[in-house]
Amino acid sequence: MQVYLDNNATTMVDPEVVETMQPFFTKMYGNPNSLHKFGTASHPALSKAINQVYTALNATDADDIVFTSCATESNNWVLQSVFIDHIVNGDKDHIITTEVEHPSVLSTCKFLEEQGVKVTYLPVNNQGVVEPHTVKSFITDKTALVSIMWASNETGMIFPIKEIGEICKEKGVLFHSDGVQAVGKIPVDLQEVHVDFVSMSAHKFHGPKGVGALYIKNSQPLTPLLHGGEHMGGRRSGTLNVPYIVAMGKAIELATTNMQEKMASIRAKRDRLEDALLELSDTFVVGNRENRTPNTILISIRGVEGEGMLWDLNNGGIGASTGSACASADLEANTVMLAIGADNELAHTGIRLSLSRFTTDEEIDYTITHFKDAVKRLRAISSSFAKQQPTKGGEAQECELH
Amino acid sequence: MQVYLDNNATTMVDPEVVETMQPFFTKMYGNPNSLHKFGTASHPALSKAINQVYTALNATDADDIVFTSCATESNNWVLQSVFIDHIVNGDKDHIITTEVEHPSVLSTCKFLEEQGVKVTYLPVNNQGVVEPHTVKSFITDKTALVSIMWASNETGMIFPIKEIGEICKEKGVLFHSDGVQAVGKIPVDLQEVHVDFVSMSAHKFHGPKGVGALYIKNSQPLTPLLHGGEHMGGRRSGTLNVPYIVAMGKAIELATTNMQEKMASIRAKRDRLEDALLELSDTFVVGNRENRTPNTILISIRGVEGEGMLWDLNNGGIGASTGSACASADLEANTVMLAIGADNELAHTGIRLSLSRFTTDEEIDYTITHFKDAVKRLRAISSSFAKQQPTKGGEAQECELH
Repeated sequence: MQVYLDNNATTMVDPEVVETMQPFFTKMYGNPNSLHKFGTASHPALSKAINQVYTALNATDADDIVFTSCATESNNWVLQSVFIDHIVNGDKDHIITTEVEHPSVLSTCKFLEEQGVKVTYLPVNNQGVVEPHTVKSFITDKTALVSIMWASNETGMIFPIKEIGEICKEKGVLFHSDGVQAVGKIPVDLQEVHVDFVSMSAHKFHGPKGVGALYIKNSQPLTPLLHGGEHMGGRRSGTLNVPYIVAMGKAIELATTNMQEKMASIRAKRDRLEDALLELSDTFVVGNRENRTPNTILISIRGVEGEGMLWDLNNGGIGASTGSACASADLEANTVMLAIGADNELAHTGIRLSLSRFTTDEEIDYTITHFKDAVKRLRAISSSFAKQQPTKGGEAQECELH
Repeated sequence: MQVYLDNNATTMVDPEVVETMQPFFTKMYGNPNSLHKFGTASHPALSKAINQVYTALNATDADDIVFTSCATESNNWVLQSVFIDHIVNGDKDHIITTEVEHPSVLSTCKFLEEQGVKVTYLPVNNQGVVEPHTVKSFITDKTALVSIMWASNETGMIFPIKEIGEICKEKGVLFHSDGVQAVGKIPVDLQEVHVDFVSMSAHKFHGPKGVGALYIKNSQPLTPLLHGGEHMGGRRSGTLNVPYIVAMGKAIELATTNMQEKMASIRAKRDRLEDALLELSDTFVVGNRENRTPNTILISIRGVEGEGMLWDLNNGGIGASTGSACASADLEANTVMLAIGADNELAHTGIRLSLSRFTTDEEIDYTITHFKDAVKRLRAISSSFAKQQPTKGGEAQECELH
């Protein structure tokens, strides 16, 4: 059996989405900026896709949603352009983010530090989230931007975006959220929260890799990252990727229609899997379920090194991850787990299992069996695990790490 | 009949290319950076695509070819990162480009001017190309970069890249060329010319919109534009767009295999069309044919306003352009024609016809008939044309504009 449980890294494109984009490769292939029928033929589909994204996010006509090549581009855009607009050509010098952001935020912040920007990297609490009062305490008159993820790619933990948004609004500081793990997974209502910029990628919700968007509240000014023609009102140049934009519209509509039912179905499977795995001794799941995206488990198994576990799961046909896919080719400790206070050994044991609406009950059954067997196999050959006593009497726990 | 003659704006995706990418949407959809089979399954196809691009451009293992979302991103990357690496964090202050570059170069240069960079915009000669001695005369010790297109999107004129490359090499100045209208249309051999950076887009040679590349000679350092994970050796972050990368490999292979035959076939159709249209009085084609991409005609018809002509052609099922698709939604004079010295009236009359390997002889026949009829119709209602005498005794000409 093949079981794909790495949906926080990327997802299968929904076959219905694949179907939707096909006419735009060989039939309606003109540049939509052209005046002729080959170009204008795709306008109705583009309009529909734009409406689908606006509807899914409850954005208003006053807002802009600009299609990009991915959330990495959207994140780079916001950070680099706020730097140009408010630091180089303004009187600010400071950006606030967290220690657990995606590399596209963290690396860009490191780059901006090299250009002289002061960056504060906020810690997360023992639930893996940053607390609003922590954000508030670091905002100064020189703060240009607060950039905090909506939900964690590694733990699934949902951040208090509404509260942080209120603080930023009150303080008059721009607020950006990397929404890549939230959009399409949990309700994102941009009238309910105050956030100036939200990044997203279609491939996290069964759209294709290579298309994303940036939401810009009230169409406020932001220097482009990609300068050029007048595409998208001059905000993002490059010939429109019509098939993928149409696909993203369809994908977000499918993901957000009857979302509560979809979430409940995924959550039920996730909880069943989590309960079963927690029957193993000395296992730890990061963060409480209620405040987690309904598809995600980050589980640590003392005595089982993460890469060894991945290897065993892979041999059994199960695709999982040690955390961020962006870092999965190297063998470093899980940065989120370190951030929430795990010891170094435990931070090497994190296994992320992330489900999707295509995950079946049969796949969950198979995964439970194989996962438990794998833990037994690997613990049997683990010298570090054999030497130590089970903690807390060997009871499994969905716990906070300190 | 439907005739698509706007292939310099974008092209139909070759059905064979569409077929090639399909398995990567719903079957081999894993993130190639992942350690599991869902991720590694696409590695052979990615390797093949990379090899196809290296082979097509005659790049060596010492060089890097980095996939991007389009040539606009590649152009922005080179200009913005040379600014960071050699101007902000170096001792240079000057960039040389031309007046006729694509907006993604020109707008980025304008942006860099606002950041304090000195930019020289070189004029083109009466053939629409920049001359090597002109480039040489403007290079100083403070010049960080020369950025000159390989071939013009509007006229099809091929620039003296080899000679300019030699000058830049001799002067020790970085040389970037926007190769978007050259790659896949004419031979581009990166061992034959000295160029540090070359931008390209797959959708100009029957690949999909939304994927391109940047060639980097000798894998030399260049600060990323998109910071983030370790994708592509840390050069360009964002989850790899596997279907489109595989598509780009296939598309460039198809475009460059038996290229001389393909070029000859397109050239024959182009020349037949051009000869027929030049039978009309007071028509002008920019640049000599021998030094033009074999698919392109930029023709001016005195007394016929460009947008009116496009409208008439469109009603007849023919898709053409007044020049750059990026500017075709506005009604400004053709900037290239102004640059080569055309008067303002003439610069409003340019019609670009750009063929592809899918253009048929029947389509050319139809276009000749319809185009000539359209000119008669529009001249009959043109007050400016009625008033003036035909120039040079009314003879048509493939001429230089002064």
